Amino acid sequence: MLQTLSRIRVVLVGTTHPGNIGSAARAMKTMGLAELVLVAPECAFPSADSTTLAAGADDVLVAARVLPRLEDALADCVWAVGTSARRRGHSVPALDPNPAAQDLIARAAQGPVALVFGRESSGLTNEELDCCNALVQIPTNPEFSSLNLAAAVQVLTYSCRIAALAESPPSPPEYDPDPPATQAELEGLFEHLQRALIRIEFLDPEKPRHLMRRLRHLYLRAGLSASEVRILRGILTHTERGGGRPLGRP
Amino acid sequence: MLQTLSRIRVVLVGTTHPGNIGSAARAMKTMGLAELVLVAPECAFPSADSTTLAAGADDVLVAARVLPRLEDALADCVWAVGTSARRRGHSVPALDPNPAAQDLIARAAQGPVALVFGRESSGLTNEELDCCNALVQIPTNPEFSSLNLAAAVQVLTYSCRIAALAESPPSPPEYDPDPPATQAELEGLFEHLQRALIRIEFLDPEKPRHLMRRLRHLYLRAGLSASEVRILRGILTHTERGGGRPLGRP
Repeated sequence: MLQTLSRIRVVLVGTTHPGNIGSAARAMKTMGLAELVLVAPECAFPSADSTTLAAGADDVLVAARVLPRLEDALADCVWAVGTSARRRGHSVPALDPNPAAQDLIARAAQGPVALVFGRESSGLTNEELDCCNALVQIPTNPEFSSLNLAAAVQVLTYSCRIAALAESPPSPPEYDPDPPATQAELEGLFEHLQRALIRIEFLDPEKPRHLMRRLRHLYLRAGLSASEVRILRGILTHTERGGGRPLGRP
Repeated sequence: MLQTLSRIRVVLVGTTHPGNIGSAARAMKTMGLAELVLVAPECAFPSADSTTLAAGADDVLVAARVLPRLEDALADCVWAVGTSARRRGHSVPALDPNPAAQDLIARAAQGPVALVFGRESSGLTNEELDCCNALVQIPTNPEFSSLNLAAAVQVLTYSCRIAALAESPPSPPEYDPDPPATQAELEGLFEHLQRALIRIEFLDPEKPRHLMRRLRHLYLRAGLSASEVRILRGILTHTERGGGRPLGRP
Protein backbone atom coordinates (compact mmCIF):
# COMPACT_ATOMS: atom_id res chain seq x y z
CA MET A 1 0.00 0.00 0.00
CA LEU A 2 2.82 2.41 0.87
CA GLN A 3 4.27 2.12 -2.64
CA THR A 4 1.11 3.92 -3.67
CA LEU A 5 2.55 7.05 -2.08
CA SER A 6 5.26 7.11 -4.73
CA ARG A 7 2.55 7.55 -7.37
CA ILE A 8 1.37 10.81 -5.78
CA ARG A 9 2.97 13.82 -7.43
CA VAL A 10 3.18 17.08 -5.52
CA VAL A 11 2.85 20.06 -7.85
CA LEU A 12 3.76 23.52 -6.57
CA VAL A 13 2.57 26.35 -8.81
CA GLY A 14 4.28 29.75 -8.87
CA THR A 15 6.12 29.35 -5.55
CA THR A 16 7.88 32.57 -4.51
CA HIS A 17 10.00 31.44 -1.52
CA PRO A 18 12.75 28.88 -2.19
CA GLY A 19 12.69 27.88 1.50
CA ASN A 20 9.12 26.69 1.04
CA ILE A 21 10.21 24.38 -1.77
CA GLY A 22 12.80 22.84 0.56
CA SER A 23 10.35 22.53 3.46
CA ALA A 24 7.78 20.98 1.14
CA ALA A 25 10.36 18.41 -0.02
CA ARG A 26 11.12 17.55 3.60
CA ALA A 27 7.42 17.25 4.42
CA MET A 28 6.91 14.96 1.41
CA LYS A 29 9.78 12.68 2.28
CA THR A 30 8.75 12.28 5.93
CA MET A 31 5.46 10.91 4.59
CA GLY A 32 7.01 8.67 1.93
CA LEU A 33 6.35 10.81 -1.18
CA ALA A 34 9.11 11.48 -3.67
CA GLU A 35 7.89 13.18 -6.84
CA LEU A 36 7.94 16.99 -6.89
CA VAL A 37 7.08 19.18 -9.88
CA LEU A 38 7.49 22.96 -9.86
CA VAL A 39 5.31 24.85 -12.30
CA ALA A 40 6.69 28.26 -13.26
CA PRO A 41 8.36 28.94 -9.90
CA GLU A 42 8.76 32.64 -9.14
CA CYS A 43 12.05 32.13 -7.35
CA ALA A 44 15.47 30.71 -8.16
CA PHE A 45 15.63 26.94 -8.21
CA PRO A 46 17.79 25.11 -7.27
CA SER A 47 18.85 27.37 -4.42
CA ALA A 48 20.80 27.14 -1.19
CA ASP A 49 17.66 28.05 0.82
CA SER A 50 15.73 25.14 -0.64
CA THR A 51 18.54 22.71 0.09
CA THR A 52 18.99 23.94 3.67
CA LEU A 53 15.31 23.60 4.51
CA ALA A 54 15.03 20.21 2.80
CA ALA A 55 17.19 19.01 5.71
CA GLY A 56 18.15 15.73 4.11
CA ALA A 57 15.39 15.44 1.52
CA ASP A 58 17.87 16.60 -1.14
CA ASP A 59 17.01 13.63 -3.34
CA VAL A 60 13.47 14.98 -3.72
CA LEU A 61 14.87 18.35 -4.84
CA VAL A 62 17.41 16.80 -7.21
CA ALA A 63 14.70 14.74 -8.90
CA ALA A 64 12.25 17.68 -9.06
CA ARG A 65 11.14 18.78 -12.52
CA VAL A 66 10.45 22.40 -13.49
CA LEU A 67 7.72 22.86 -16.10
CA PRO A 68 6.18 25.97 -17.63
CA ARG A 69 2.49 25.06 -17.40
CA LEU A 70 0.22 23.16 -15.03
CA GLU A 71 -1.23 21.19 -17.94
CA ASP A 72 2.27 19.77 -18.60
CA ALA A 73 2.62 18.71 -14.98
CA LEU A 74 -0.69 16.87 -15.04
CA ALA A 75 -0.67 15.45 -18.58
CA ASP A 76 -0.15 11.81 -17.58
CA CYS A 77 -2.21 11.97 -14.37
CA VAL A 78 -5.45 10.06 -13.94
CA TRP A 79 -6.63 12.35 -11.12
CA ALA A 80 -5.58 15.76 -9.82
CA VAL A 81 -6.70 17.40 -6.61
CA GLY A 82 -6.28 21.15 -6.25
CA THR A 83 -5.90 22.83 -2.87
CA SER A 84 -8.23 25.71 -2.27
CA ALA A 85 -8.45 28.05 0.68
CA ARG A 86 -11.79 29.42 -0.38
CA ARG A 87 -14.80 28.00 -2.16
CA ARG A 88 -15.53 30.10 -5.18
CA GLY A 89 -18.82 28.86 -6.47
CA HIS A 90 -16.91 26.08 -8.13
CA SER A 91 -18.93 23.12 -9.29
CA VAL A 92 -16.07 20.70 -8.62
CA PRO A 93 -16.60 19.39 -5.08
CA ALA A 94 -14.22 20.57 -2.32
CA LEU A 95 -13.46 17.67 -0.02
CA ASP A 96 -11.98 17.47 3.44
CA PRO A 97 -8.41 16.10 3.54
CA ASN A 98 -9.31 12.60 4.75
CA PRO A 99 -11.83 11.70 2.04
CA ALA A 100 -9.71 13.48 -0.57
CA ALA A 101 -6.67 11.42 0.46
CA GLN A 102 -8.62 8.15 0.53
CA ASP A 103 -9.90 8.88 -2.95
CA LEU A 104 -6.44 9.81 -4.21
CA ILE A 105 -4.90 6.62 -2.83
CA ALA A 106 -7.63 4.52 -4.44
CA ARG A 107 -7.17 6.21 -7.82
CA ALA A 108 -3.37 5.99 -7.62
CA ALA A 109 -3.75 2.26 -8.28
CA GLN A 110 -4.62 3.22 -11.85
CA GLY A 111 -1.88 5.71 -12.67
CA PRO A 112 -0.13 8.87 -11.52
CA VAL A 113 -2.20 11.25 -9.40
CA ALA A 114 -1.39 14.77 -8.25
CA LEU A 115 -1.84 17.16 -5.36
CA VAL A 116 -1.65 20.74 -6.65
CA PHE A 117 -0.68 23.68 -4.45
CA GLY A 118 -0.85 27.35 -5.41
CA ARG A 119 1.10 30.50 -4.67
CA GLU A 120 1.89 31.56 -1.10
CA SER A 121 0.00 34.81 -1.54
CA SER A 122 -2.96 33.92 -3.70
CA GLY A 123 -3.26 30.17 -4.18
CA LEU A 124 -4.36 28.69 -7.49
CA THR A 125 -6.17 30.72 -10.12
CA ASN A 126 -9.59 29.66 -11.31
CA GLU A 127 -7.98 28.50 -14.57
CA GLU A 128 -5.60 26.28 -12.61
CA LEU A 129 -8.37 24.89 -10.42
CA ASP A 130 -10.18 24.10 -13.66
CA CYS A 131 -7.37 21.64 -14.49
CA CYS A 132 -8.16 19.62 -11.34
CA ASN A 133 -10.70 16.83 -10.98
CA ALA A 134 -11.45 17.65 -7.37
CA LEU A 135 -10.66 20.27 -4.77
CA VAL A 136 -9.51 19.78 -1.22
CA GLN A 137 -9.81 22.28 1.58
CA ILE A 138 -8.00 22.06 4.91
CA PRO A 139 -10.52 23.12 7.56
CA THR A 140 -8.58 25.99 9.08
CA ASN A 141 -9.62 28.48 11.73
CA PRO A 142 -11.90 30.87 9.81
CA GLU A 143 -10.37 33.77 11.73
CA PHE A 144 -6.80 32.84 10.74
CA SER A 145 -6.56 30.61 7.71
CA SER A 146 -3.00 31.61 6.80
CA LEU A 147 -1.51 28.15 6.48
CA ASN A 148 2.11 28.10 5.36
CA LEU A 149 2.61 26.37 1.98
CA ALA A 150 4.88 23.65 3.40
CA ALA A 151 2.46 23.18 6.32
CA ALA A 152 -0.36 22.54 3.83
CA VAL A 153 1.88 20.04 2.02
CA GLN A 154 2.59 18.41 5.39
CA VAL A 155 -1.08 18.08 6.35
CA LEU A 156 -2.16 16.67 2.99
CA THR A 157 0.77 14.28 2.54
CA TYR A 158 0.19 13.11 6.12
CA SER A 159 -3.46 12.49 5.24
CA CYS A 160 -2.32 10.47 2.21
CA ARG A 161 0.04 8.40 4.34
CA ILE A 162 -2.71 7.66 6.87
CA ALA A 163 -5.02 6.65 4.02
CA ALA A 164 -2.31 4.41 2.53
CA LEU A 165 -1.60 2.78 5.89
CA ALA A 166 -5.31 2.13 6.41
CA GLU A 167 -5.80 0.51 3.01
CA SER A 168 -6.31 -3.19 3.03
CA PRO A 169 -3.82 -5.25 1.03
CA PRO A 170 -4.67 -4.85 -2.63
CA SER A 171 -6.50 -7.68 -4.30
CA PRO A 172 -4.65 -9.31 -7.20
CA PRO A 173 -4.55 -6.76 -10.00
CA GLU A 174 -7.25 -7.38 -12.54
CA TYR A 175 -7.04 -6.40 -16.15
CA ASP A 176 -9.02 -3.17 -16.30
CA PRO A 177 -10.63 -2.98 -19.71
CA ASP A 178 -11.55 0.63 -19.11
CA PRO A 179 -8.75 2.62 -17.46
CA PRO A 180 -9.36 6.20 -16.40
CA ALA A 181 -8.59 9.02 -18.80
CA THR A 182 -5.39 10.96 -18.26
CA GLN A 183 -5.52 14.72 -17.83
CA ALA A 184 -3.97 15.07 -21.31
CA GLU A 185 -6.82 13.04 -22.77
CA LEU A 186 -9.30 15.23 -20.92
CA GLU A 187 -7.63 18.40 -22.18
CA GLY A 188 -7.82 16.99 -25.68
CA LEU A 189 -11.50 16.39 -25.13
CA PHE A 190 -12.10 19.94 -23.87
CA GLU A 191 -10.31 21.48 -26.81
CA HIS A 192 -12.23 19.30 -29.17
CA LEU A 193 -15.46 20.16 -27.41
CA GLN A 194 -14.80 23.88 -27.65
CA ARG A 195 -13.95 23.64 -31.35
CA ALA A 196 -17.06 21.64 -32.00
CA LEU A 197 -19.30 23.95 -30.01
CA ILE A 198 -17.96 26.98 -31.83
CA ARG A 199 -18.33 25.17 -35.13
CA ILE A 200 -21.98 24.51 -34.46
CA GLU A 201 -22.34 28.10 -33.21
CA PHE A 202 -23.44 26.99 -29.79
CA LEU A 203 -20.53 28.85 -28.24
CA ASP A 204 -19.60 32.46 -28.94
CA PRO A 205 -15.91 32.18 -29.95
CA GLU A 206 -15.29 35.59 -28.38
CA LYS A 207 -16.67 34.54 -24.98
CA PRO A 208 -16.35 30.79 -24.56
CA ARG A 209 -15.20 30.88 -20.94
CA HIS A 210 -18.20 30.64 -18.69
CA LEU A 211 -19.89 27.83 -20.53
CA MET A 212 -16.66 25.91 -21.07
CA ARG A 213 -15.90 26.04 -17.35
CA ARG A 214 -19.27 24.57 -16.52
CA LEU A 215 -18.65 21.77 -19.00
CA ARG A 216 -15.12 21.13 -17.74
CA HIS A 217 -16.37 20.84 -14.18
CA LEU A 218 -19.06 18.46 -15.22
CA TYR A 219 -16.61 16.14 -16.99
CA LEU A 220 -13.87 16.54 -14.40
CA ARG A 221 -16.22 15.53 -11.61
CA ALA A 222 -17.31 12.50 -13.59
CA GLY A 223 -13.86 10.86 -13.61
CA LEU A 224 -14.11 9.81 -17.24
CA SER A 225 -12.50 6.64 -18.54
CA ALA A 226 -10.24 6.69 -21.59
CA SER A 227 -12.83 4.85 -23.66
CA GLU A 228 -15.51 7.34 -22.63
CA VAL A 229 -13.28 10.14 -23.84
CA ARG A 230 -12.86 8.32 -27.15
CA ILE A 231 -16.63 7.97 -27.44
CA LEU A 232 -17.18 11.67 -26.66
CA ARG A 233 -14.56 12.69 -29.17
CA GLY A 234 -16.12 10.46 -31.77
CA ILE A 235 -19.38 12.28 -31.19
CA LEU A 236 -17.59 15.62 -31.49
CA THR A 237 -15.90 14.61 -34.72
CA HIS A 238 -19.26 13.75 -36.13
CA THR A 239 -20.68 16.98 -34.77
CA GLU A 240 -17.96 19.02 -36.47
CA ARG A 241 -18.67 17.31 -39.77
CA GLY A 242 -22.21 18.55 -39.44
CA GLY A 243 -22.96 15.01 -40.46
CA GLY A 244 -25.50 12.32 -39.90
CA ARG A 245 -27.54 10.64 -42.52
CA PRO A 246 -30.88 12.11 -43.34
CA LEU A 247 -33.68 10.68 -41.26
CA GLY A 248 -35.25 7.57 -42.56
CA ARG A 249 -32.18 6.15 -44.35
CA PRO A 250 -30.29 3.28 -42.69
CA MET B 1 -16.81 21.93 20.31
CA LEU B 2 -14.22 24.25 18.80
CA GLN B 3 -13.88 26.14 22.08
CA THR B 4 -12.35 22.89 23.30
CA LEU B 5 -9.31 23.70 21.17
CA SER B 6 -8.56 26.66 23.41
CA ARG B 7 -8.12 24.23 26.31
CA ILE B 8 -5.26 22.47 24.52
CA ARG B 9 -1.89 23.83 25.58
CA VAL B 10 1.09 23.38 23.30
CA VAL B 11 4.29 22.92 25.31
CA LEU B 12 7.63 23.20 23.52
CA VAL B 13 10.57 21.92 25.57
CA GLY B 14 14.12 23.14 25.00
CA THR B 15 13.50 24.61 21.53
CA THR B 16 16.75 25.79 19.89
CA HIS B 17 15.51 27.67 16.79
CA PRO B 18 13.40 30.79 17.39
CA GLY B 19 11.93 30.44 13.89
CA ASN B 20 10.37 27.13 14.94
CA ILE B 21 8.61 28.87 17.83
CA GLY B 22 7.10 31.35 15.37
CA SER B 23 6.12 28.65 12.89
CA ALA B 24 4.59 26.58 15.69
CA ALA B 25 2.52 29.61 16.79
CA ARG B 26 1.29 30.05 13.22
CA ALA B 27 0.45 26.35 12.94
CA MET B 28 -1.48 26.52 16.24
CA LYS B 29 -3.49 29.55 15.28
CA THR B 30 -4.50 28.16 11.86
CA MET B 31 -6.05 25.27 13.78
CA GLY B 32 -7.71 27.40 16.47
CA LEU B 33 -5.28 26.82 19.35
CA ALA B 34 -3.96 29.74 21.36
CA GLU B 35 -2.00 28.66 24.44
CA LEU B 36 1.74 28.23 24.04
CA VAL B 37 4.20 27.44 26.84
CA LEU B 38 7.96 27.33 26.32
CA VAL B 39 9.88 25.21 28.80
CA ALA B 40 13.53 26.23 29.15
CA PRO B 41 13.95 27.39 25.55
CA GLU B 42 17.54 27.20 24.32
CA CYS B 43 17.19 30.29 22.18
CA ALA B 44 16.30 33.92 22.67
CA PHE B 45 12.61 34.60 23.15
CA PRO B 46 10.92 36.86 22.14
CA SER B 47 12.91 37.27 18.95
CA ALA B 48 12.51 38.85 15.52
CA ASP B 49 12.77 35.41 13.87
CA SER B 50 9.86 34.07 15.89
CA THR B 51 7.72 37.07 15.08
CA THR B 52 8.50 36.94 11.35
CA LEU B 53 7.62 33.26 11.04
CA ALA B 54 4.49 33.64 13.17
CA ALA B 55 3.17 35.60 10.16
CA GLY B 56 0.27 37.15 12.01
CA ALA B 57 0.01 34.78 14.95
CA ASP B 58 1.79 37.38 17.10
CA ASP B 59 -0.95 37.18 19.72
CA VAL B 60 0.01 33.57 20.42
CA LEU B 61 3.64 34.63 20.94
CA VAL B 62 2.73 37.62 23.12
CA ALA B 63 0.61 35.42 25.38
CA ALA B 64 3.22 32.63 25.51
CA ARG B 65 4.63 31.77 28.93
CA VAL B 66 8.23 30.73 29.56
CA LEU B 67 8.69 28.29 32.42
CA PRO B 68 11.77 26.54 33.78
CA ARG B 69 10.44 23.00 34.15
CA LEU B 70 7.97 20.76 32.35
CA GLU B 71 6.25 19.95 35.64
CA ASP B 72 5.36 23.63 36.00
CA ALA B 73 3.88 23.70 32.50
CA LEU B 74 1.68 20.69 33.23
CA ALA B 75 0.76 21.36 36.87
CA ASP B 76 -2.90 22.22 36.24
CA CYS B 77 -3.41 19.81 33.33
CA VAL B 78 -5.74 16.83 33.55
CA TRP B 79 -3.98 15.01 30.67
CA ALA B 80 -0.68 15.44 28.88
CA VAL B 81 0.38 13.73 25.67
CA GLY B 82 4.08 13.60 24.82
CA THR B 83 5.33 13.34 21.25
CA SER B 84 7.81 10.59 20.64
CA ALA B 85 9.70 9.71 17.48
CA ARG B 86 10.82 6.37 18.82
CA ARG B 87 9.31 3.80 21.16
CA ARG B 88 11.69 3.17 23.98
CA GLY B 89 10.27 0.26 25.87
CA HIS B 90 7.93 2.69 27.55
CA SER B 91 4.93 1.21 29.29
CA VAL B 92 2.80 4.25 28.51
CA PRO B 93 0.99 3.53 25.23
CA ALA B 94 2.06 5.43 22.05
CA LEU B 95 -1.02 6.28 20.03
CA ASP B 96 -1.51 7.37 16.45
CA PRO B 97 -2.44 11.05 16.04
CA ASN B 98 -6.16 10.49 15.38
CA PRO B 99 -6.99 8.45 18.50
CA ALA B 100 -4.63 10.61 20.58
CA ALA B 101 -6.44 13.75 19.38
CA GLN B 102 -9.89 12.28 19.96
CA ASP B 103 -8.88 11.31 23.47
CA LEU B 104 -7.37 14.74 24.14
CA ILE B 105 -10.50 16.52 22.93
CA ALA B 106 -12.69 14.32 25.13
CA ARG B 107 -10.52 14.94 28.20
CA ALA B 108 -10.30 18.68 27.49
CA ALA B 109 -13.93 18.91 28.62
CA GLN B 110 -12.63 18.33 32.14
CA GLY B 111 -9.76 20.77 32.31
CA PRO B 112 -6.57 21.93 30.60
CA VAL B 113 -4.76 19.32 28.51
CA ALA B 114 -1.35 19.51 26.88
CA LEU B 115 0.54 18.41 23.81
CA VAL B 116 4.26 18.27 24.66
CA PHE B 117 6.99 18.58 22.00
CA GLY B 118 10.71 18.00 22.57
CA ARG B 119 13.95 19.41 21.20
CA GLU B 120 14.59 19.61 17.45
CA SER B 121 17.65 17.36 17.77
CA SER B 122 16.70 14.85 20.41
CA GLY B 123 13.02 15.10 21.35
CA LEU B 124 11.87 14.60 24.92
CA THR B 125 13.99 12.87 27.54
CA ASN B 126 12.70 9.79 29.31
CA GLU B 127 12.17 11.92 32.42
CA GLU B 128 10.04 14.34 30.41
CA LEU B 129 8.04 11.53 28.80
CA ASP B 130 7.47 10.26 32.31
CA CYS B 131 5.50 13.45 33.03
CA CYS B 132 3.02 12.57 30.28
CA ASN B 133 -0.10 10.42 30.58
CA ALA B 134 0.18 9.11 27.04
CA LEU B 135 2.50 9.23 24.07
CA VAL B 136 1.67 10.02 20.46
CA GLN B 137 3.74 9.06 17.45
CA ILE B 138 3.27 10.48 13.96
CA PRO B 139 3.65 7.52 11.57
CA THR B 140 6.51 8.88 9.46
CA ASN B 141 8.48 7.20 6.70
CA PRO B 142 10.81 4.86 8.63
CA GLU B 143 13.60 5.76 6.20
CA PHE B 144 13.23 9.52 6.79
CA SER B 145 11.48 10.41 9.99
CA SER B 146 12.99 13.87 10.31
CA LEU B 147 9.82 15.84 10.84
CA ASN B 148 10.36 19.56 11.47
CA LEU B 149 9.17 20.69 14.92
CA ALA B 150 6.57 23.11 13.54
CA ALA B 151 5.44 20.45 11.04
CA ALA B 152 4.80 18.06 13.95
CA VAL B 153 2.85 20.81 15.73
CA GLN B 154 0.88 21.33 12.50
CA VAL B 155 -0.02 17.66 12.09
CA LEU B 156 -1.09 17.18 15.70
CA THR B 157 -3.03 20.44 16.03
CA TYR B 158 -4.71 19.61 12.70
CA SER B 159 -5.65 16.20 14.14
CA CYS B 160 -7.10 17.94 17.20
CA ARG B 161 -9.13 20.30 15.03
CA ILE B 162 -10.52 17.40 13.00
CA ALA B 163 -11.42 15.60 16.23
CA ALA B 164 -13.10 18.74 17.60
CA LEU B 165 -15.05 19.26 14.37
CA ALA B 166 -16.21 15.64 14.42
CA GLU B 167 -17.44 15.79 17.99
CA SER B 168 -21.15 15.83 18.41
CA PRO B 169 -22.61 18.86 20.18
CA PRO B 170 -21.87 18.46 23.87
CA SER B 171 -24.68 17.28 26.08
CA PRO B 172 -25.67 19.69 28.88
CA PRO B 173 -22.79 19.75 31.33
CA GLU B 174 -23.38 17.49 34.29
CA TYR B 175 -21.88 17.96 37.71
CA ASP B 176 -18.99 15.53 37.74
CA PRO B 177 -18.65 14.19 41.27
CA ASP B 178 -15.27 12.70 40.42
CA PRO B 179 -13.15 15.01 38.28
CA PRO B 180 -9.82 13.79 36.93
CA ALA B 181 -6.65 14.40 38.94
CA THR B 182 -4.39 17.22 37.86
CA GLN B 183 -0.76 16.52 37.05
CA ALA B 184 0.21 18.37 40.24
CA GLU B 185 -1.99 15.99 42.24
CA LEU B 186 -0.36 13.05 40.48
CA GLU B 187 3.13 14.40 41.20
CA GLY B 188 2.11 14.77 44.85
CA LEU B 189 0.98 11.16 44.79
CA PHE B 190 4.26 9.95 43.23
CA GLU B 191 6.37 11.80 45.79
CA HIS B 192 4.24 10.46 48.56
CA LEU B 193 4.47 6.97 47.09
CA GLN B 194 8.27 7.14 46.87
CA ARG B 195 8.57 8.37 50.48
CA ALA B 196 6.27 5.65 51.66
CA LEU B 197 8.04 2.93 49.69
CA ILE B 198 11.40 4.01 51.07
CA ARG B 199 9.97 4.22 54.56
CA ILE B 200 8.78 0.64 54.35
CA GLU B 201 12.14 -0.33 52.80
CA PHE B 202 10.50 -1.59 49.64
CA LEU B 203 12.53 0.89 47.62
CA ASP B 204 16.28 1.42 47.76
CA PRO B 205 16.56 5.19 48.43
CA GLU B 206 19.83 5.18 46.44
CA LYS B 207 18.25 3.65 43.36
CA PRO B 208 14.55 4.43 43.30
CA ARG B 209 14.33 5.17 39.57
CA HIS B 210 13.47 2.00 37.75
CA LEU B 211 10.72 0.88 40.04
CA MET B 212 9.26 4.37 40.39
CA ARG B 213 9.05 4.70 36.61
CA ARG B 214 7.10 1.48 36.34
CA LEU B 215 4.69 2.71 39.00
CA ARG B 216 4.36 6.14 37.40
CA HIS B 217 3.50 4.56 34.08
CA LEU B 218 0.91 2.34 35.67
CA TYR B 219 -0.86 5.26 37.37
CA LEU B 220 -0.44 7.63 34.45
CA ARG B 221 -2.07 5.13 32.08
CA ALA B 222 -4.98 4.72 34.46
CA GLY B 223 -6.11 8.35 34.23
CA LEU B 224 -6.77 8.69 37.95
CA SER B 225 -9.54 10.83 39.36
CA ALA B 226 -8.85 13.37 42.10
CA SER B 227 -10.74 11.28 44.63
CA GLU B 228 -8.75 8.18 43.67
CA VAL B 229 -5.57 10.11 44.34
CA ARG B 230 -6.93 11.11 47.76
CA ILE B 231 -7.72 7.50 48.51
CA LEU B 232 -4.24 6.35 47.41
CA ARG B 233 -2.61 9.05 49.49
CA GLY B 234 -4.72 8.07 52.46
CA ILE B 235 -3.37 4.55 52.08
CA LEU B 236 0.17 5.90 51.80
CA THR B 237 -0.24 8.01 54.94
CA HIS B 238 -1.32 4.96 56.80
CA THR B 239 1.54 2.99 55.24
CA GLU B 240 4.07 5.57 56.44
CA ARG B 241 2.72 5.43 59.95
CA GLY B 242 3.48 1.73 59.84
CA GLY B 243 -0.02 1.54 61.23
CA GLY B 244 -2.96 -0.75 61.32
CA ARG B 245 -4.40 -2.38 64.34
CA PRO B 246 -3.00 -5.72 65.38
CA LEU B 247 -4.85 -8.60 63.84
CA GLY B 248 -7.89 -9.79 65.67
CA ARG B 249 -8.74 -6.46 67.36
CA PRO B 250 -11.71 -4.55 65.84
